[in-house]
Amino acid sequence: MNVHGVAYRTIWPIERRAVGIIDQALLPFEFATLEIDDCPSMVRAIATMQLRGAPLIGVAAAYGMALAMNDDSGDAALERACRDLLASRPTAVNLRWAVQRQQQHLQRLAAGERRAQAWREADAIAEEDVAMNRSIGSYASALLAQTHARLQRPVNVLTHCNAGWLATVDFGTALSGIYLAFDAGVPLHVWVDETRPRNQGLLTAWELQAHGVDHTLIADNAGGHLMQHGQVDLVIVGADRVGGDGAVCNKIGTYLKALAAQDNCVPFYAAVPSPTIDWELNDATREVPIEQRAGDELRIVHGMGEDGRRAKVALFGAAAAVDNPAFDVTPPRLVTGLVTERGIASPRELAGLFGDRSNRG
Amino acid sequence: MNVHGVAYRTIWPIERRAVGIIDQALLPFEFATLEIDDCPSMVRAIATMQLRGAPLIGVAAAYGMALAMNDDSGDAALERACRDLLASRPTAVNLRWAVQRQQQHLQRLAAGERRAQAWREADAIAEEDVAMNRSIGSYASALLAQTHARLQRPVNVLTHCNAGWLATVDFGTALSGIYLAFDAGVPLHVWVDETRPRNQGLLTAWELQAHGVDHTLIADNAGGHLMQHGQVDLVIVGADRVGGDGAVCNKIGTYLKALAAQDNCVPFYAAVPSPTIDWELNDATREVPIEQRAGDELRIVHGMGEDGRRAKVALFGAAAAVDNPAFDVTPPRLVTGLVTERGIASPRELAGLFGDRSNRG
Repeated sequence: MNVHGVAYRTIWPIERRAVGIIDQALLPFEFATLEIDDCPSMVRAIATMQLRGAPLIGVAAAYGMALAMNDDSGDAALERACRDLLASRPTAVNLRWAVQRQQQHLQRLAAGERRAQAWREADAIAEEDVAMNRSIGSYASALLAQTHARLQRPVNVLTHCNAGWLATVDFGTALSGIYLAFDAGVPLHVWVDETRPRNQGLLTAWELQAHGVDHTLIADNAGGHLMQHGQVDLVIVGADRVGGDGAVCNKIGTYLKALAAQDNCVPFYAAVPSPTIDWELNDATREVPIEQRAGDELRIVHGMGEDGRRAKVALFGAAAAVDNPAFDVTPPRLVTGLVTERGIASPRELAGLFGDRSNRG
Repeated sequence: MNVHGVAYRTIWPIERRAVGIIDQALLPFEFATLEIDDCPSMVRAIATMQLRGAPLIGVAAAYGMALAMNDDSGDAALERACRDLLASRPTAVNLRWAVQRQQQHLQRLAAGERRAQAWREADAIAEEDVAMNRSIGSYASALLAQTHARLQRPVNVLTHCNAGWLATVDFGTALSGIYLAFDAGVPLHVWVDETRPRNQGLLTAWELQAHGVDHTLIADNAGGHLMQHGQVDLVIVGADRVGGDGAVCNKIGTYLKALAAQDNCVPFYAAVPSPTIDWELNDATREVPIEQRAGDELRIVHGMGEDGRRAKVALFGAAAAVDNPAFDVTPPRLVTGLVTERGIASPRELAGLFGDRSNRG
């Protein structure tokens, strides 16, 4: 998407000798790009969160293996690259998937063919991500255009966390439809939840501002009040895992917004690339293990100090008891629709849309 | 309540020559008391939020007038004290009420009688606040004791914002029952919402920690998830204004917790001293004007810097659009009970409990 008028992706190959990235560790306070020219540098960029967002990390790892093959395409080098990249963020599912896909592809080839094939495969993984997000966005933007046609005024969308292009190669998931609708001239305004404790809403606001989309930051507490007063026409969020029944596991606090949406007859959508759907899941609220993250995420707030430099403050002492669950589950009864790359489905219709993949269809 | 084993109120007369207060501008990072010995100092203490919380500000103003009478009990001095105190926090309702009560009491008296009467009236206003809160607490603590008897394990209570003793002279409103139950040996644990954007949850956590009550700080986003997993037995909050129908206007985000409580069959209570009830209100969601506060409350976060001093960081630039509504309205259908100084009433029973005051009883 655009950064002040210039089109960017979060990651791009540079003449098959290096990889360009946006340094996300500096966002939202500073925008800068970096050139990464070997695999150890890519490992460091992932580990220090200069690259973040599950889909993007997968693509970055695939390019990391291409960089490794540039230097040495032997079996030992291939194995070392896989091991180092897998260790960079040990819990990210997309990272493992992308590394294994590259590994399986490359180890069948002679060492001399690996370099070119590794770049080709990384490019393919990146383009697949973009295509899926663009397709999700086309369905969501049609929904926004319809809503605008009905209301005859700018559409007010509320989103939680960051499911934008920064977390993917381009377009994002929940924000993809917003960008495509905006680019098509649909007037809209986005309410951006701060998303404590990690404040990913600041990244969402940065993205929207950089692309020129009208938006307003709000405390996570405010969304219900806005819905009570008719100031939200539609809620759209991303998802970390979705059950075959349409239950949405997403950033903590999503469930509260879904409750308020239902209480005020506001439609609630989740943008869901199909790899996010877990067809084995029967009762997401009981079965999905909810990651408990460090209390310091709540305790320490990062921002810009009075001297204009990045700084942090502690809200309370290290001895204070803190609970920090990272995700919650929104039951299907609160979900109006799942926006997938194949179209929009209600929770009941989801399995039918993916009848070839689910065992429910 | 106790601060590390020593009983405190938030305000106390010192030999009718000065007034002691807890300097709340330093909390939760530092605990210190101050001696205020004239009316201008009291005006400054209120204006700089060394004293905060609507009931406490009213009592402080009443003592401010007593301090003024110490120096000069003439008509001009009385009028000046009223004017200066009213200007210290122009929007606080309790402040106006307390100043007018003192003024009406004192202006009927000869100047020579005013000094002693001003101290007596301020003491009376303070004791009335304590008595009302203690009574609310006695009903809420009985509810907590019953809940414990039924569950046979510690009772998990969730609260939002700070409706504790720091906002009153003693006991608080929502927290009064927690303190009385704790003192009576009822095992309990309190989930404390951070309460963005002003983080009043930090004051609640400080109070509970100082008195020794087990508690855990959580992001405002987490409460729904905890309720889904049976980790909340009861929600109790304060209220800024309550309709005669039981609608609860309270800190922004309260409505979202009430929705989650209903969705998970968790009882939801508001602690409501009767002066908070507005019998004229017919449709609180439409009629109560919701204060829009400065965007800087969301933009700037105050805490402790890395050097151990108080510091602040900006989360985003001054140009970012921010919306900051301070309160929301929870409709009566989501409210299990109102805990008043006369007992606990469902929204339908509230008018009957105050039949002598309401026009609905």
